[in-house]
Amino acid sequence: MIERTLDPKTAKLVDDMLQGNARALARLITIVEEDGEDAHLVLGQLGPTGRAHRIGITGPPGAGKSTLVNRLTSCARQNGLRVGVICADPSSPFTGGAVLGDRVRMTEHSMDEGVHIRSMSTRGSLGGLPTTVHGVIELMDASGKDVILVETVGVGQMELDVMASVDTVVVALVPEAGDDVQAMKAGLMEIADVFVVNKADRPGAESLLVGIRSMLDLVCHGDGWRIPVLATQAENNIGVEDLYQQIWEHRRFGLESGSFEERRAHQRHDEFTAALQKMVTHQFMQTVAADPQLAACVTRMNAGEISPYEAASEVFRTVSQKLR
Amino acid sequence: MIERTLDPKTAKLVDDMLQGNARALARLITIVEEDGEDAHLVLGQLGPTGRAHRIGITGPPGAGKSTLVNRLTSCARQNGLRVGVICADPSSPFTGGAVLGDRVRMTEHSMDEGVHIRSMSTRGSLGGLPTTVHGVIELMDASGKDVILVETVGVGQMELDVMASVDTVVVALVPEAGDDVQAMKAGLMEIADVFVVNKADRPGAESLLVGIRSMLDLVCHGDGWRIPVLATQAENNIGVEDLYQQIWEHRRFGLESGSFEERRAHQRHDEFTAALQKMVTHQFMQTVAADPQLAACVTRMNAGEISPYEAASEVFRTVSQKLR
Repeated sequence: MIERTLDPKTAKLVDDMLQGNARALARLITIVEEDGEDAHLVLGQLGPTGRAHRIGITGPPGAGKSTLVNRLTSCARQNGLRVGVICADPSSPFTGGAVLGDRVRMTEHSMDEGVHIRSMSTRGSLGGLPTTVHGVIELMDASGKDVILVETVGVGQMELDVMASVDTVVVALVPEAGDDVQAMKAGLMEIADVFVVNKADRPGAESLLVGIRSMLDLVCHGDGWRIPVLATQAENNIGVEDLYQQIWEHRRFGLESGSFEERRAHQRHDEFTAALQKMVTHQFMQTVAADPQLAACVTRMNAGEISPYEAASEVFRTVSQKLR
Repeated sequence: MIERTLDPKTAKLVDDMLQGNARALARLITIVEEDGEDAHLVLGQLGPTGRAHRIGITGPPGAGKSTLVNRLTSCARQNGLRVGVICADPSSPFTGGAVLGDRVRMTEHSMDEGVHIRSMSTRGSLGGLPTTVHGVIELMDASGKDVILVETVGVGQMELDVMASVDTVVVALVPEAGDDVQAMKAGLMEIADVFVVNKADRPGAESLLVGIRSMLDLVCHGDGWRIPVLATQAENNIGVEDLYQQIWEHRRFGLESGSFEERRAHQRHDEFTAALQKMVTHQFMQTVAADPQLAACVTRMNAGEISPYEAASEVFRTVSQKLR
């Protein structure tokens, strides 16, 4: 393996980004999104990060998450903080319009130099944030943002992983909800640091608030944090200031109790494992491709003669022995 | 590495399962779900699989997927086919009841020996199917099922992966849908082989049907399959027989055009890569844990002295050189 270093142009981008240059940040995010070798080189050169408070906003479809993110951005700006926003961009040839409508609400911040908004493209456009979101958070942090807001649809493993890489998880729900949403709620309960019942002017809001609060009474929190359950109407800017305060309250609590640092340590370890896994697998696959005997094994598997699991075992055995 | 083989008890389970024993199948699914070393040993001993037609049912929350799966199971049984059903079990201490209500609908098949229903437990209970679902499909196939129905909530990367491992993807939508669901639809469009507008007696069904059909007119299909857009009312058993026929029509078309085999080859390759990745990472992590110098590097990373990406690069470099 030849040791690689960043080319001078990209190294310059890193320097510029660390000085707070927005264009350099945007270009480095693209490099990290591409998830190639340069991505790891860039991320390896950021120096210590972790200054920014990282907030995840999740919840079922239609909970008004984008509007909440928009309002929270305004709160942070009014307090003089620099904000990074990361959201999934489920754009597609089919429904550009419908989705754009959602994103357009963020335009009031798009001319503000203190706000960097990034819609991450999603593989397959199912609306989930990709694993590279961790690296993008690191970049925004290194570039001097004080607050990073990460919005995700909150269903599925990927979202769970994303939410595990923030400091405070805000779960937004809305009064109306079907069976599946009920099920989702159960999962969301487990990751919430702050609960929001948005669109709280709709019928059923009060009983949802009561329901969540009584469920939460049953939950034991390791660190002693009492999960607040707030009512908001983000569209009308009602209750958002309170939500904003509760997020900072959660940070203060975590810093005092030690749970903040504990969570960060977990995150660092997860990122380490994921990065290592990518590197290792990449090299292993190159070895397989370059070896005629192993390539033959793959061919037999492709032809359906042996199962994928048999082929994987055989290849692993062979390469492991060679490396010995 | 010591070569391991299956213990006699598990080997007996594999034999029994291949003879169609339901209890053996259930126990082997549990082993595969646990995703340990035995899982790969079991999957490596199934022999050739791939006889069953694998159908994925996905769509946004509340689209009536469980009811559709239930009705399709009845159709298959009426045609004398053996059916395997795999669904996510988003059970949780909080909402067991709400979710159970959904599952209970399948009880009409629970006494039928020709139907094997498996709710897979989900990490974090967010309702997504785990990666081990591929192995469970293989097991059900090997045990002699003719049709395998996989139900998933259809949001996020995990679901996309699951849908990539079936032969026919049915996407179910319902007339009412918010912004996020619109966005999801875009992603779902890309994976659908058959579209269903369920609860088609509700307002807006007709315009949704027209909308989907006109969107689909813009899509170019590599294999020439014309994606049908059907109206169903699964609850009232209306339109399901037609859906069932279209699924088989899709299979016939794929077998003739070659797209069926092409898809299967892709799936085999993906499973191979995933299995290999697990094995390799596992061994690599063991090496790291056993080496004091590498462990020290991890400690520095845990303490925040170096970034996870720097630590991963250093560990990878060191281990690669040792293995050389």
